[in-house]
Amino acid sequence: MADQDAQPRLGTEPSALPVLRWDEPPEGPVLVLLDQTRLPAEEVELVCTDAPALVRAIQTLAVRGAPLLGIAGAYGVALAAVRGYDVSEAADLLASARPTAVNLAHGVRRAAHAHAAAAAAGADPERAAAAALAEARALHREDAEASARMARHGLALLDEMLPAGGHRLLTHCNTGALVSGGEGTAFAVALAAHRQGRLARLWVDETRPLLQGSRLTAYEAARHGMAYHLLTDNAAGSLFAAGQVDAVLIGADRIAADGSVANKVGSYPLAVLAKYHHVPFVVVAPTTTVDAGTPDGASIVVEQRSGREVTELTSRPDASGGGEVPGLVVAPLGTQVYNPAFDITPPELITAIVTEEGVISPVTGAGVAQLCARSSQITIS
Amino acid sequence: MADQDAQPRLGTEPSALPVLRWDEPPEGPVLVLLDQTRLPAEEVELVCTDAPALVRAIQTLAVRGAPLLGIAGAYGVALAAVRGYDVSEAADLLASARPTAVNLAHGVRRAAHAHAAAAAAGADPERAAAAALAEARALHREDAEASARMARHGLALLDEMLPAGGHRLLTHCNTGALVSGGEGTAFAVALAAHRQGRLARLWVDETRPLLQGSRLTAYEAARHGMAYHLLTDNAAGSLFAAGQVDAVLIGADRIAADGSVANKVGSYPLAVLAKYHHVPFVVVAPTTTVDAGTPDGASIVVEQRSGREVTELTSRPDASGGGEVPGLVVAPLGTQVYNPAFDITPPELITAIVTEEGVISPVTGAGVAQLCARSSQITIS
Repeated sequence: MADQDAQPRLGTEPSALPVLRWDEPPEGPVLVLLDQTRLPAEEVELVCTDAPALVRAIQTLAVRGAPLLGIAGAYGVALAAVRGYDVSEAADLLASARPTAVNLAHGVRRAAHAHAAAAAAGADPERAAAAALAEARALHREDAEASARMARHGLALLDEMLPAGGHRLLTHCNTGALVSGGEGTAFAVALAAHRQGRLARLWVDETRPLLQGSRLTAYEAARHGMAYHLLTDNAAGSLFAAGQVDAVLIGADRIAADGSVANKVGSYPLAVLAKYHHVPFVVVAPTTTVDAGTPDGASIVVEQRSGREVTELTSRPDASGGGEVPGLVVAPLGTQVYNPAFDITPPELITAIVTEEGVISPVTGAGVAQLCARSSQITIS
Repeated sequence: MADQDAQPRLGTEPSALPVLRWDEPPEGPVLVLLDQTRLPAEEVELVCTDAPALVRAIQTLAVRGAPLLGIAGAYGVALAAVRGYDVSEAADLLASARPTAVNLAHGVRRAAHAHAAAAAAGADPERAAAAALAEARALHREDAEASARMARHGLALLDEMLPAGGHRLLTHCNTGALVSGGEGTAFAVALAAHRQGRLARLWVDETRPLLQGSRLTAYEAARHGMAYHLLTDNAAGSLFAAGQVDAVLIGADRIAADGSVANKVGSYPLAVLAKYHHVPFVVVAPTTTVDAGTPDGASIVVEQRSGREVTELTSRPDASGGGEVPGLVVAPLGTQVYNPAFDITPPELITAIVTEEGVISPVTGAGVAQLCARSSQITIS
């Protein structure tokens, strides 16, 4: 254990993390973002006055995380509309800022459609812009509500599986308020346990190569005064062997129709460790993460990322979006790197998938389909 | 995969790594060390003219690795004797340079005893010094021979287990020439496979927190023109799942009487992954690594190291030995860290232990005892 003292803000619940907010100062409406590239050293706000500024923030990873990117994209369209820019041009620019981020394009489309529908129905530009902003706010609110519901379902599941309380939970990557309109997915469950006095320890994997655990999850846990310990991804095995992990909680980037889960690389080894040690392995994700068009884990294409994320410490995309700021080189020149962004955990290693609509356990294709059908009905109604 | 090109030195076998050598320039004898803290960026030699200089090199980790520390300690005693310093004082200083390094004290004792025995038998100071140097050279030679024998036994085992050849081997931490008088332990086996044209790929875990895989193993693999890929420790799971690992080869810090193996943290998760995917998990270590006084894995005390190794990138012990040079902070101030230096793999997860005396498989307490008895007989004879 380290010899430093934790400094939780005892007895005070921190204000909501200012990850993203719409503001209307006298100079005109703006979208204000927390610059995630500066965390945990500094809490710096980025103020975007137009779509190109937001595109830069997305490309430099100042704002990141699938659900949050969707919300940011929707607000970006509203910003263009309210300030009188060409909405269609702004939408195109935003939707392609990170082409692989499906949620981003989805959020942009929702706000752009709302704007177009209002205009087609005879609304003047001001009212059409208001419709786009209302849609962005609705998306933001829906995501926050989904977070809260996942947290409730997840905590109920934990309490059922672990009736003794004093949960010691292991998590990977970052799944909190920094990726969500609300308090996140897996992290939101741990936070709910903390608020109910039932979290004994949150074990935070540092999550190489980009250290989302150290930089972001530890930051969020510290803000909430949660009892957390950071560890290298290598050290999780010792914790399992010592009986120090009651459950694993992770998020998901994509869930295939058969219940296979793509998530940050390092999730699958945790699933195997959890299975070997008879520890529940729980995935927390909204139903929008399910991709019915992907039949199984083998059909998910795994993105291979630049080797420099591994051979250079703190290498990150350049502000221009066209390259990378070099970090400290720690491997020989010319080293080839195997650097998959995520891995696939098959359904037989997953104890439960917690969604805003309820819990799937055991994890089967039929269970996934049933829950998604329920979610679609609710969306339609 | 990374987009950089590998630059192996094709067709040329590199000269032996100048990790440690005794030299006798006109100014007087010296011990020359490769400064491992500067790797892989620079190959810089450190020249020690007395025991205090060597102590500093040991404390700053310029020289490291259990077997190599023993050899360095023995040469340090010889250096003091040859240069006419107080041998007993030098031995005390060296033996306590890193109190937890058992091999260091052992090497120091061997050279000091040889010196004392020669003096007691009437040798003049010059001949007594020569006896100390001869003992250091004997230890150095024995370790190199043990490496070569482990490599032979290990390669024979691989060829037996994997008759199809084209071995794809996964390794962790650094177990090559940088920790040994010869070519190392696990790495020496992979190198032997490479020389015989039977290594298709060496997968190198980066090995957080201190990155011995990236910094040292990748450096050694590149020098030999081996086909290697670096990966984060998190990415090993994906390789197993994809059927890309034929065997795991690791070293050992200590082997208990029941065959439990203490090794660099991250070894145990690899053993669980290997078991789950039916991949052989092979430990390569000299018989001197067996500690008969430790009955089982639970009896091995695991060293907990400073949290700064995890919360700060490239933090390392200060040159003065009394503190640490701070690195780039990547976690919130006050973060508590769980940072065990190694973990314990129980015998049931180990396919075989390869020693210089032969192979133990299956791994049982009886097998370990039998091989050690054979080793003791050889040492006595």
